[in-house]
Amino acid sequence: MNPTAAIIIIGNEILSGRTQDININYIAKSLAISGIKLKEARVIPDDPKVIINTVNEIKAAVDYVFTTGGIGPTHDDITSDCIAEAFGVPNQIHPESFKLLEDYIGKENFNEARQRMAHLPLGAKPIPNTISVAPGYVIGNVFVMAGVPQIMQSMLDSIIPTLRHGPPIISKTWYAYHASEGKVAADLNEIQNKFPQTDIGSYPFYLNEKQNGVALVTKGQDQQAVEQAASEVYNLLVKMGYQPIEGEPH
Amino acid sequence: MNPTAAIIIIGNEILSGRTQDININYIAKSLAISGIKLKEARVIPDDPKVIINTVNEIKAAVDYVFTTGGIGPTHDDITSDCIAEAFGVPNQIHPESFKLLEDYIGKENFNEARQRMAHLPLGAKPIPNTISVAPGYVIGNVFVMAGVPQIMQSMLDSIIPTLRHGPPIISKTWYAYHASEGKVAADLNEIQNKFPQTDIGSYPFYLNEKQNGVALVTKGQDQQAVEQAASEVYNLLVKMGYQPIEGEPH
Repeated sequence: MNPTAAIIIIGNEILSGRTQDININYIAKSLAISGIKLKEARVIPDDPKVIINTVNEIKAAVDYVFTTGGIGPTHDDITSDCIAEAFGVPNQIHPESFKLLEDYIGKENFNEARQRMAHLPLGAKPIPNTISVAPGYVIGNVFVMAGVPQIMQSMLDSIIPTLRHGPPIISKTWYAYHASEGKVAADLNEIQNKFPQTDIGSYPFYLNEKQNGVALVTKGQDQQAVEQAASEVYNLLVKMGYQPIEGEPH
Repeated sequence: MNPTAAIIIIGNEILSGRTQDININYIAKSLAISGIKLKEARVIPDDPKVIINTVNEIKAAVDYVFTTGGIGPTHDDITSDCIAEAFGVPNQIHPESFKLLEDYIGKENFNEARQRMAHLPLGAKPIPNTISVAPGYVIGNVFVMAGVPQIMQSMLDSIIPTLRHGPPIISKTWYAYHASEGKVAADLNEIQNKFPQTDIGSYPFYLNEKQNGVALVTKGQDQQAVEQAASEVYNLLVKMGYQPIEGEPH
């Protein structure tokens, strides 16, 4: 069985439209390669009650939870206090992180605000990253990461090898310009029924007025079934008068 | 009081990492301009139980719900069946949409798969869009929209004027290259405490190795308070030896 995961994006800046989230996509891709099934992603505000309730609800429902955002030194960085509360433990100075931050920042600049970053929920283990000394950590099945994409990505890259991986999901995509979903739908449904162990998705695309069409994605853990279903998808596109191209439209 | 909203992105393609979602950001920006408070966004899979439960939970919690995805003619387009079930009504032929689709597609090509798109939950009202005949609709407080961004955007643009708007949220941003969150955190916290009617956010940015720093965003409904708090943010950046620039880093 594939392990399961969920993402919690913590940040008013996403909900206000200020910031386009790109963390969900990076995490989703890494999990897919590792055979870990992403069940859900939520974007929630910097609101203690919402953070605590969401973390508690989601950590009970999946194998791995990934949060991003809210672990810096400013007043709006409240994630660690909330994670500590969700786990019913104090948020206290983590001596190893304290020393790391103090060495990096310099004793004279290691003010109270920055010392807040050295507080981790009791029992948390730091997640290293190569970009900064941002204090990401894991506690229980929850991975608490930075919101800045470059730092989050470095943290995730160091987390992924420590996770239980599942059988990889194999995927094959054919697309065709000017193809219409309505024209292929009935036959596509038949292919889906014939290969129930695969998951066939149909995605219209509009790169621009001339370059539009449909991409048909076949996925699953059974390589032979994926190849066979994808080959029938190819034949279907040809039969309808389209020119199938392998891969994602770009 | 500002009306509240939530977004439900329906689509395996987002959770598998195939597709980078950009719908949340477009909807979030439109709502912010309209003074509608976005409380949450969720990305969920093409799974009937999850869709039905999520729609039922969220439509009870906010004034407006926006869904994207799953309203096309293929077997993986199950949103309308699920919305109908969430509202306890049949998903049936909507004569007006049937005629519109038939005229657009042509009687000879209006096959069974395409006729599925003319099924709307009983009581739903179509949402027009200028790009396609994709059958978006509103039922109760739920707006069901296409997943393809261009079509979703056209639908949303026709929805926004029909909503109850709230007092607009005013926002002012100062950023500075090479500024450090840890250096401004304490004074920033004082400014936040002095202007409790504003919401001050601190966002590190890394455009590239040389262009990094911090953006400080002041938001609220009280224009005078926003201006005053932002002016103190400006002074703080100057005091710390940084050169404040107005607007978002780019």
